[in-house]
Amino acid sequence: MSTQVFETMESNVRSYSRSFPVVFNKAKGSYLYADNGNAYIDFLMGAGALNYGHNNEYIKQQLLAYMADDSIMQGLDMFTIAKGDFISSFNDLLLKPKGLQYKFQFCGPTGTNAIEAALKLARNYTKRSNVIAFMGAYHGLSQGSLALTSNQYHRQVAGVGLHNVTFLPFENGGPAGLDSLSYFEMMLEDTHSGIEKPAAVILESVQAEGGVNVASAEWLRSLKQICEKHGILFISDDIQIGCGRSGDFFSFEQAGIVPDIVVLSKSLSGYGLPMAMLLIKPELDIWQPGEHNGTFRGYQLAFIGGKAALEFRRDTGLEAAVKQKAIYIERFLKEELAAADERIVIRGRGLMWGIDLSSFEDPLLAKKVAQQSFEDKLIVECVGRHDKVIKLLPALTIEETTLNQALDILQRNINANIRSRASRKAALA
Amino acid sequence: MSTQVFETMESNVRSYSRSFPVVFNKAKGSYLYADNGNAYIDFLMGAGALNYGHNNEYIKQQLLAYMADDSIMQGLDMFTIAKGDFISSFNDLLLKPKGLQYKFQFCGPTGTNAIEAALKLARNYTKRSNVIAFMGAYHGLSQGSLALTSNQYHRQVAGVGLHNVTFLPFENGGPAGLDSLSYFEMMLEDTHSGIEKPAAVILESVQAEGGVNVASAEWLRSLKQICEKHGILFISDDIQIGCGRSGDFFSFEQAGIVPDIVVLSKSLSGYGLPMAMLLIKPELDIWQPGEHNGTFRGYQLAFIGGKAALEFRRDTGLEAAVKQKAIYIERFLKEELAAADERIVIRGRGLMWGIDLSSFEDPLLAKKVAQQSFEDKLIVECVGRHDKVIKLLPALTIEETTLNQALDILQRNINANIRSRASRKAALA
Amino acid sequence: MSTQVFETMESNVRSYSRSFPVVFNKAKGSYLYADNGNAYIDFLMGAGALNYGHNNEYIKQQLLAYMADDSIMQGLDMFTIAKGDFISSFNDLLLKPKGLQYKFQFCGPTGTNAIEAALKLARNYTKRSNVIAFMGAYHGLSQGSLALTSNQYHRQVAGVGLHNVTFLPFENGGPAGLDSLSYFEMMLEDTHSGIEKPAAVILESVQAEGGVNVASAEWLRSLKQICEKHGILFISDDIQIGCGRSGDFFSFEQAGIVPDIVVLSKSLSGYGLPMAMLLIKPELDIWQPGEHNGTFRGYQLAFIGGKAALEFRRDTGLEAAVKQKAIYIERFLKEELAAADERIVIRGRGLMWGIDLSSFEDPLLAKKVAQQSFEDKLIVECVGRHDKVIKLLPALTIEETTLNQALDILQRNINANIRSRASRKAALA
Amino acid sequence: MSTQVFETMESNVRSYSRSFPVVFNKAKGSYLYADNGNAYIDFLMGAGALNYGHNNEYIKQQLLAYMADDSIMQGLDMFTIAKGDFISSFNDLLLKPKGLQYKFQFCGPTGTNAIEAALKLARNYTKRSNVIAFMGAYHGLSQGSLALTSNQYHRQVAGVGLHNVTFLPFENGGPAGLDSLSYFEMMLEDTHSGIEKPAAVILESVQAEGGVNVASAEWLRSLKQICEKHGILFISDDIQIGCGRSGDFFSFEQAGIVPDIVVLSKSLSGYGLPMAMLLIKPELDIWQPGEHNGTFRGYQLAFIGGKAALEFRRDTGLEAAVKQKAIYIERFLKEELAAADERIVIRGRGLMWGIDLSSFEDPLLAKKVAQQSFEDKLIVECVGRHDKVIKLLPALTIEETTLNQALDILQRNINANIRSRASRKAALA
Repeated sequence: MSTQVFETMESNVRSYSRSFPVVFNKAKGSYLYADNGNAYIDFLMGAGALNYGHNNEYIKQQLLAYMADDSIMQGLDMFTIAKGDFISSFNDLLLKPKGLQYKFQFCGPTGTNAIEAALKLARNYTKRSNVIAFMGAYHGLSQGSLALTSNQYHRQVAGVGLHNVTFLPFENGGPAGLDSLSYFEMMLEDTHSGIEKPAAVILESVQAEGGVNVASAEWLRSLKQICEKHGILFISDDIQIGCGRSGDFFSFEQAGIVPDIVVLSKSLSGYGLPMAMLLIKPELDIWQPGEHNGTFRGYQLAFIGGKAALEFRRDTGLEAAVKQKAIYIERFLKEELAAADERIVIRGRGLMWGIDLSSFEDPLLAKKVAQQSFEDKLIVECVGRHDKVIKLLPALTIEETTLNQALDILQRNINANIRSRASRKAALA
Repeated sequence: MSTQVFETMESNVRSYSRSFPVVFNKAKGSYLYADNGNAYIDFLMGAGALNYGHNNEYIKQQLLAYMADDSIMQGLDMFTIAKGDFISSFNDLLLKPKGLQYKFQFCGPTGTNAIEAALKLARNYTKRSNVIAFMGAYHGLSQGSLALTSNQYHRQVAGVGLHNVTFLPFENGGPAGLDSLSYFEMMLEDTHSGIEKPAAVILESVQAEGGVNVASAEWLRSLKQICEKHGILFISDDIQIGCGRSGDFFSFEQAGIVPDIVVLSKSLSGYGLPMAMLLIKPELDIWQPGEHNGTFRGYQLAFIGGKAALEFRRDTGLEAAVKQKAIYIERFLKEELAAADERIVIRGRGLMWGIDLSSFEDPLLAKKVAQQSFEDKLIVECVGRHDKVIKLLPALTIEETTLNQALDILQRNINANIRSRASRKAALA
Repeated sequence: MSTQVFETMESNVRSYSRSFPVVFNKAKGSYLYADNGNAYIDFLMGAGALNYGHNNEYIKQQLLAYMADDSIMQGLDMFTIAKGDFISSFNDLLLKPKGLQYKFQFCGPTGTNAIEAALKLARNYTKRSNVIAFMGAYHGLSQGSLALTSNQYHRQVAGVGLHNVTFLPFENGGPAGLDSLSYFEMMLEDTHSGIEKPAAVILESVQAEGGVNVASAEWLRSLKQICEKHGILFISDDIQIGCGRSGDFFSFEQAGIVPDIVVLSKSLSGYGLPMAMLLIKPELDIWQPGEHNGTFRGYQLAFIGGKAALEFRRDTGLEAAVKQKAIYIERFLKEELAAADERIVIRGRGLMWGIDLSSFEDPLLAKKVAQQSFEDKLIVECVGRHDKVIKLLPALTIEETTLNQALDILQRNINANIRSRASRKAALA
Repeated sequence: MSTQVFETMESNVRSYSRSFPVVFNKAKGSYLYADNGNAYIDFLMGAGALNYGHNNEYIKQQLLAYMADDSIMQGLDMFTIAKGDFISSFNDLLLKPKGLQYKFQFCGPTGTNAIEAALKLARNYTKRSNVIAFMGAYHGLSQGSLALTSNQYHRQVAGVGLHNVTFLPFENGGPAGLDSLSYFEMMLEDTHSGIEKPAAVILESVQAEGGVNVASAEWLRSLKQICEKHGILFISDDIQIGCGRSGDFFSFEQAGIVPDIVVLSKSLSGYGLPMAMLLIKPELDIWQPGEHNGTFRGYQLAFIGGKAALEFRRDTGLEAAVKQKAIYIERFLKEELAAADERIVIRGRGLMWGIDLSSFEDPLLAKKVAQQSFEDKLIVECVGRHDKVIKLLPALTIEETTLNQALDILQRNINANIRSRASRKAALA
């Protein structure tokens, strides 16, 4: 297929197609296939919506069977077998074993919609309007969540003022000497800080779009304690880092904390089907019927996928496998890849990793590596300030061979760029 | 399945399950099936997301084939065959024949997300922030679109101020003597109106949730002229009234106007799959890459469904059939059903109709009729101020027999309530 | 004095000096004196701050005595004899005889500051944020009151969004057929109006800057009733129309209503000394100490002037005299001046009158008349949409001769402009 | 006079009268006189509005002469001799000798009104809406300036959201390790800080109400440099610390910087007469006529007082005398008064000093000292977080004897409280 139809008919807002300008057709596991027959290793995985790989066979069979059988597809928020089964499975396979007690709120099937719902609930429950978000955060682009998204590129097109949010530096995110949490406590306790007491703190425990910035377990616990002390709700945005990406199903498990509200989407359906939901502590559930809604909150196929995904996790021992791969990839990145140059900084958790090349002079270094890797048939995205961090988001199910191929491509291209630059410099000297 | 799992585990925000407290399982055409075997005629149709009937067979086969073949499911905004084919079909089967020229913007797969995108675009294009919306309007519940949604029930849980909107009465919506459009023009021309010049006017040409309020073609044309005269963008929210519901594919065709931005969702995918998009006049496309985005803007299955739906429309002569049914239903409602009592008011267009019972003393009359109809195995919703309007939203594909059964149920229950009341009154007199 | 110092050193924001480009020096009664010796009849009277004439002799003597004696001048909100005496006098001479019971709040000595205080009080008392203001309203230019001021010329320099206000047409201010109060009631009662229930309605019972638009007693009573029915506070902005300008001391007396909050400033001190205050119903006084403040809320000289002004009113029978003059001026304007041309529209109350020339073709007609009148030694301002209304604001103490001179100047210049235009037209025909 | 009239008729918002519950009558120099004959040394001085002492004789004579002569009192923004003379004097006696070039903008005669004007100008000039203010700041209580005032006590009664401001810790105001200016630069340079680039930075170089927090010259220079680098306007709020209070006329002179906008009020008229103005760099003067206004911007008596005050400064060598006294008072406070206990912290500049008692256990210590000092006939205010800082604001003209008396009273009462507590503790031990 020619790309002309897109170039002439699709809005300029299209984005990924500029970095990966081929026409895709099929997909399986860790691979995307272009219509010219090329196979690409996918380290973007639908921006985190495909943790179980493209077209996961176990999930696929259940979806096909459900559809083939004329089961209900779109049920608004009516009772359905599919939804009931999903809730029960999620409760039995995840919440109960982890000792968590939450109620389920299904909303419009996008992360940003779930964030909007969480904000409403937190603001109404506390009768406060301010919310604390972190520099580097990405929580979505509808007006309420956009206010919490720190990237000026997105904020500047809001067209209206973005209010009722106070940004704090993320862990290790501020200038030297600034401890974000001390600063936060000071704000709360100083009657002249000018900061309205917040309804909630919201955060990704690993900021994905912001540059793969990892909050430590200790920092998360301290933040949670401050929230408890001051009656502030703690909202975990597990949209990208949740659903197993961090190793555990939830990103906050490692820190041993229990958020008041958990926001899930992306890989929740297990198959890239649009789905989003909130887990809310039972005592927070002050919603009146229909106060927040959305037509596609009842997309039944996603419930089927979501349940199948949990079964797949259990049956394949995925969690243990992911933690194993996490050790493997971390070791490679830190000990082999980063050994080439001390300016290479590695950050990550589970199977989300960032190769931070911002210490290099060349502002486009990360982008060049990503582009050359695409030529080498690896799809990988740049994130963070000025897109200087290469984000690695492999399928949780990736085979070792494929993983190694991808890591080799990255290492080769990084080294080539560093060396070519070094040799040019040497030649000039 | 017991409903206990929902009652204990799902948030109180669930809504439709309170009116229709059975567990649904399967669906086909105009029917929803409960797991106890009962079949319900569906006059709610996924709140307008299922114009082509539940599990439309033509579309279903294409979806199954696409999935079975491991075609790409989630593609962000990369180039894919599925998206390219959808754009081409939409252009060839709809836009070109109607003489329309638009660019396609795919956004998060919910109506509210598309509204948010439209607002950003309009505000950035015009460098203005105010937007005109209409009393009775429903445009969604994320913060930007919630500001345009008039229902206090939804507004009061925003938790923050809802600004940058000016509400006007809809056609025939204000107090006696008020002509909304004269008032609007006065606002624009009066330097002391206090109203900031708006970026855009946004409206549903038939307000669905607001009570099935129908804008006349003439009124729409006048509104469009005012917008043109003052350089204000005209945004048609065709989320519920579009995709063939009004008879034509677009609700504005009848008026012969061309909106600057058209917002589509709900039945766009033809099968209840989450999907939303904007049609924007080419000259408005000032977006920079990725300024508005959303993970599930690349849900490929929806593109397949959307293309299949257009083919189904064409191949079955659906448009003509709908217009035929519209005449039939209008005649029945106005001449037969409403003949029972002059207080029954009928409004509608195409296959969206409202039976307005607000002139009766009993504030719960419409709700009672809906409830009794559910007992008679008809699913129908109450909308509008205090839920006093019964909204009829049959599948566009509904068979005459089914339609007649449903209309009979409604007529019978309305008459029973009126008569019982009348006879009670007579007995008391 | 040369005007160069102003032209080079004063900000471009200076305004009246452009219409009256002479240097003033002295003032007495109805006259302003330029340093070139010219005497001007003043129909602007400090924009309503000099109801008792320039340098009113009775007040002056008390101010001089107070100052000469080293009495306290600036006392913040401490107890002082001057303030105590003012409160007692105001209560004894005005409130008690009129059967009014109010508490006194002194704030920063500007009208806009008092409006800001009134807004805070109303919003906190009702726990609502929206406020109803009227098209044509002018309530000041600080951010809170600017939001209520309808003129785009002022609004567009706010630099931030102006929210939490809903504008309604003033009586007779909307398009044909619109009854503002029916519309207001509809808004309040319609759950889908999109309008948040307001904390308060604020209005000038005669809009001065807006074009001398007069609310009828009946309309004010109806508005007050709506407010009472819905628990909305009624705030009378008596800054310009109060302090005797309307005939009565308070503008609302004529309608027999009792506002919840009355805002006074301008002529309150009787001598052009900065002063502002709120009268608030005792049950509304939920203020905590110092929640609203302002350094110059304790400008003692203004209390002295304010008390003296009340004595002057009483001792000279001013109220009766003003009502007499009001009849005189109304008759002249309507029966003599307006007789020249049916396009001349006269509006007013007490001693505030507007000659509305907006029905004439020439958009600058009112400005020309004002300019020519200045050449004839009469100072008079144009107000309203596009400055097409000549506003007459004589001293309440004006002598008949002076009044007649001023009216003659106006009549002559209006007639001259109409005739010259008519004769030019005739010549062309 | 009984205080009953105030207690029954004045709003609960009255504040200073609770700390100083006597009725004042006369005033001269550093003394306030109650109607019971008691004389109080005034260390509050009209909250900084009386730098030249109560009823300064030199200024008084000029005011009396001006008034007696029926010179114009209220002139809006017309040209007057009084205003022309004031501008010339201010330019000749202050601006020119200091090498400063500013245009004069007269606005409503309150500090808060001038702040509102400065905000509008900065926002319109830069086309940005965010403004940087500092924790501890007090800029006024009208909506625009209230947004910049950090004290929650005042913010919580706004009744609406306070937006378009970002607060930073003042110099030494944040938690250990936080350098406000590094943090500010980081915010500006980080594309993901979430902070919209500000139009302006506004600050008091000594925060008065915030607790007498002093910015160092070096810090001010660094802040100014950041502003210049990023095209951000620097607004000096010299309302309380200006007009000679800091030693120099302007507070920023010491740092050798030239603000883009200077806001003056309080002591500007020299006599407690309401007055406020902006000094704006000529290139910023993009105002259109009347865009910001205010009836009492033309209070002529204040111009007379303002000019006389400048002459008084010059003729009495006030500046040198103030600097001498500043050295004296600083030595006494730091070396004698603070020697009693290491927990006593002294801060200040010129003749504004704070005795910070917040390190003592007793949260009411400062309030007790102030109350006991009032019993000893010294009027002094507590400011800062929880009112734990005693603010010394003597007249700039205070005689040595009076100053010593006042300092003795403070020292005695502080020592008494510390000792009594210490001895109680000793007794208990």
